[in-house]
Amino acid sequence: MNIRLKNLSQRLKRELLDCILVTAAANISYLVKFKSRDSYLLVSKKKSVYFTDSRYIDEARPLLKREGISAVNIHGPVFEEIARECEDLKFRRIGFEGHVMTCLEHRRLAASLKGKARLFPSGELVEELRQIKDASEIAFIKQALKITGLTLGFARKIIRPGRKELEIAAELERFIRFQGASNAAFDIIVASGPNSSYPHHAPTNRIIRKNEPVLIDIGVEYKGYKSDLTRVYFLGKINNLTQRVHKVVLQAQQLAIKEIRPGAKMAEIDGVSRGYIARQGFGKCFGHSLGHGVGLETHEGPRISTTSKGVLRPGMVFTVEPGVYLAGKFGIRLEDMVLVTKKGCVVLSVSIN
Amino acid sequence: MNIRLKNLSQRLKRELLDCILVTAAANISYLVKFKSRDSYLLVSKKKSVYFTDSRYIDEARPLLKREGISAVNIHGPVFEEIARECEDLKFRRIGFEGHVMTCLEHRRLAASLKGKARLFPSGELVEELRQIKDASEIAFIKQALKITGLTLGFARKIIRPGRKELEIAAELERFIRFQGASNAAFDIIVASGPNSSYPHHAPTNRIIRKNEPVLIDIGVEYKGYKSDLTRVYFLGKINNLTQRVHKVVLQAQQLAIKEIRPGAKMAEIDGVSRGYIARQGFGKCFGHSLGHGVGLETHEGPRISTTSKGVLRPGMVFTVEPGVYLAGKFGIRLEDMVLVTKKGCVVLSVSIN
Repeated sequence: MNIRLKNLSQRLKRELLDCILVTAAANISYLVKFKSRDSYLLVSKKKSVYFTDSRYIDEARPLLKREGISAVNIHGPVFEEIARECEDLKFRRIGFEGHVMTCLEHRRLAASLKGKARLFPSGELVEELRQIKDASEIAFIKQALKITGLTLGFARKIIRPGRKELEIAAELERFIRFQGASNAAFDIIVASGPNSSYPHHAPTNRIIRKNEPVLIDIGVEYKGYKSDLTRVYFLGKINNLTQRVHKVVLQAQQLAIKEIRPGAKMAEIDGVSRGYIARQGFGKCFGHSLGHGVGLETHEGPRISTTSKGVLRPGMVFTVEPGVYLAGKFGIRLEDMVLVTKKGCVVLSVSIN
Repeated sequence: MNIRLKNLSQRLKRELLDCILVTAAANISYLVKFKSRDSYLLVSKKKSVYFTDSRYIDEARPLLKREGISAVNIHGPVFEEIARECEDLKFRRIGFEGHVMTCLEHRRLAASLKGKARLFPSGELVEELRQIKDASEIAFIKQALKITGLTLGFARKIIRPGRKELEIAAELERFIRFQGASNAAFDIIVASGPNSSYPHHAPTNRIIRKNEPVLIDIGVEYKGYKSDLTRVYFLGKINNLTQRVHKVVLQAQQLAIKEIRPGAKMAEIDGVSRGYIARQGFGKCFGHSLGHGVGLETHEGPRISTTSKGVLRPGMVFTVEPGVYLAGKFGIRLEDMVLVTKKGCVVLSVSIN
């Protein structure tokens, strides 16, 4: 059993659970250490069992063996197979991921258990473990960022008036693969001129013009781990308002980063950026939260927002991405990724511009 | 209110519901007629209300207005906003998508309703409507297939010994965008030699060699609608076993397609291919179902499998994709998309090779 499974099974003891049925794909990937989909993982102190179907079983089996996990090829209804395994292992108290499992799945699982065991929503146990990255995870994230940096360098060369947003996205998507990324982490955002005022704009056939900002929000996947960065490039002259907003956003980001250290309250980090932007008169133009964790998922814990309850801990990796959006005019978002260290933080994307 | 919303609200009446809270992104996209994410849609006979946050609201509002839908910018906890709206509209019986909503979301929504209304799982109401494509949807799917065909033509030109699977995937991904696709529908599969024996292989750095099959499973997205096709190309000589398996799979596919017409049982269509493959001695090498619907999602209803209960109806669009996989050796899967017509079916991808 690997250390991640061990950590999880220790948490089970504390929650008085015999086992937990993990159903979130990223949580399963984390625990089994390879990218998993359409699978279910039952974790207990005694034994961990992975359920998947014929499409994946042959590829998965040797990788699972390495981590000491049994594999079951699903033939019939999956929850009946899981219930049978639980009965064999005499599990009476079964945890499940209430934030992931659908109401219908819960009903089916409960029916399959036929009253022989009880189900308990176990909270975000695996997500909490995933918030603290280990050395191998940080290395993968750094490599994903390295590829992202090379890609942004390439982007600066190919963005020019006359090209379409979608073409730029296509070239970047191709480029990342040649740099060793398995994939884009999410649909690359290329937002030119007024399109940059929509925080999650999808690239269109719009032709990029002179003297306008081009916002690129890009992430790649490397060995399952993601990156997420945003830069805004200017083509030609920048008007005064755009310059001013850019300065405000950059300063808001720098001020927040300065405060990042173990023990700092997440909501206060968000508040540093948000307060500064508000004092500069753009409070209503920054609607989203300051940042989010990045790892096996592009968006994971911790969430850095006004309503966050937690404090920062060493090993957390997250984005710091204040933005100011003037609807229909333009938007500026600057997004970097930081790693919380024992004493403060490292900006992992510091050399990327 | 558009016809899709009208159809849904008629179903609500039959289910004795005042409204339904739609939470599946593709279902919402279908009803509002634009690609939606991180949103919630409350549909009733009186009024439909769309909830989303500041990242999407400005882009969504004019599109929603066109369809006669109100927009709410989410500020606080979303289920409290939804509950408030339900209270204002005096809804007492609220349907929800039990196959989509998580146990935690259900608990939060129920708590926010404070006993003023009751929740009922409403089944796959929207998915059922989505199974029958209208003319505009079929046109989008046809265009997605046209782009896919051009891309496979390009693939045939660039696949050659010495190139890496990942490079081919990167080139194809770039190409589809230049043909007008907004995106790949899913991670393109490029599986060479023994890798083709894993039905859902992800492209690797493996270098393609002479005399081996290269399986490409590719789909694109056009105006939100997907395509999904698989072809196997041979580089050089094909050995006898590979030839034989290819013939069996092709014949299995043709036999199934011949039987596709309104009223035909889905399970029987699957059975035609499966039975033939079994009689040829490869029964254990075909583990997945024969096909799946394609539309706003790459995998949607109807599912064409041994356990399917339904019958085919005009307007359904789905894949027919038998496969034979010889673990560690090679695999052949041939996947086309068909549209059920009034009298039989049309193979939408017929001209693509």
